[in-house]
Amino acid sequence: MMKVMRMKIPVIRNVLEESDARARENRTLFDRHGVFVLNMMSSPGAGKTTLLQKTIPLLQKRNLKCAVIEGDITSTLDSEKLSPLGIPVVQANTEPFGGDCHVGSHLVQAALAHFDLATMDVLFIENIGNLVCPAEFDLGEDRKVVVLSITEGEDKPVKYPLMFRECKLCLLSKMDLAPHLDVDLARIRENIRRTNAELTVIPVSAKTGEGVAAWCDWIVAQKSGKRKAEGSDQKSREL
Amino acid sequence: MMKVMRMKIPVIRNVLEESDARARENRTLFDRHGVFVLNMMSSPGAGKTTLLQKTIPLLQKRNLKCAVIEGDITSTLDSEKLSPLGIPVVQANTEPFGGDCHVGSHLVQAALAHFDLATMDVLFIENIGNLVCPAEFDLGEDRKVVVLSITEGEDKPVKYPLMFRECKLCLLSKMDLAPHLDVDLARIRENIRRTNAELTVIPVSAKTGEGVAAWCDWIVAQKSGKRKAEGSDQKSREL
Repeated sequence: MMKVMRMKIPVIRNVLEESDARARENRTLFDRHGVFVLNMMSSPGAGKTTLLQKTIPLLQKRNLKCAVIEGDITSTLDSEKLSPLGIPVVQANTEPFGGDCHVGSHLVQAALAHFDLATMDVLFIENIGNLVCPAEFDLGEDRKVVVLSITEGEDKPVKYPLMFRECKLCLLSKMDLAPHLDVDLARIRENIRRTNAELTVIPVSAKTGEGVAAWCDWIVAQKSGKRKAEGSDQKSREL
Repeated sequence: MMKVMRMKIPVIRNVLEESDARARENRTLFDRHGVFVLNMMSSPGAGKTTLLQKTIPLLQKRNLKCAVIEGDITSTLDSEKLSPLGIPVVQANTEPFGGDCHVGSHLVQAALAHFDLATMDVLFIENIGNLVCPAEFDLGEDRKVVVLSITEGEDKPVKYPLMFRECKLCLLSKMDLAPHLDVDLARIRENIRRTNAELTVIPVSAKTGEGVAAWCDWIVAQKSGKRKAEGSDQKSREL
């Protein structure tokens, strides 16, 4: 973050406007091709990648073609984990852009050049593990999703309210660990409700598979809702 | 973060210089009063506060007077958890400063006005839960410490290298959960070593008490090493 500030000192406001302009261009492109885009955010280590490893095969069974943009500061570890799925994955590292603490819309735009959007149904953008800054940036996605590991305790929705206000869905991850934790799941839900009463909550476990089908149902329903709402159910004819 | 940028558009470089200047002033003040200062950083929910709840009573038994600056974006939840310890605690929220994603040196400076440094031995600054941005800012502390919950998996040192390079100590937290996780502790240590071979690692569990005494030993040794190195073992006479 600071390094970008250093690079762009005289044009900070322009950078913000640029960011929103790139997000709008991304959204236009996604809509034209009927691609449903999810911006997945969480603390580091909440299990986004592991969850995608379980989610994408289920979506494939429902004839949805998936792709992933893997956001990281550095390393290609997460992309490597996803490569056995045989889907298009682009690693988007912020290190060459100053080590940004979040995925920017310009990075998504750069990644899109490596995809064939015409043959894609669902695109996951796995953001950098960070519960603060990623919530502030529009990437052009359809829905923002926060993954909250129940190992992180009850208070995160109250301490990081912007993240929980920006998202449409909260996946409560690592549910398999519930018996081993002093964590009050009802209190997590109450804190979520207090922060954003509209936020849908789905408990999941990549280990046991709990909730992964429900999460796929949510994606399919939201994707279909989007098409109807925007009268853009034209993809099959356009292609 | 972005909001601070908006507030200070014409003087971004000055803000960075200001930040370092405030950090130097803080450090001078800490050194004058012989206060040893730890900047505690981690992902959200790695257990910094719970660990402090266990650590501070042990340090008190060793006749060390402790105090805490609780950094958060919003809420006083963590300060409330620490209040039964009967030590000075100042809640430093970034929300009035634009919702910064890290504790800044100006915020530490503002907090210091509420403490009596002359009667203090160890000051903990509990930073905002974020493995990225807090690593970039000097607060005037003596040592940076990263708390890594083993629930976050093996790859965090490789994915967030700056944090692990800046710190002198890594506390591997939530060790009590090890039997319930598919996590390779040797691989965590190997990834830490690859990122920063100088980083001391202490496994801890606030739940079982594992490693908390070793962590206190480390604090005492580092505090004493600092005094000797800087020839500033004058506190008792000065007071």
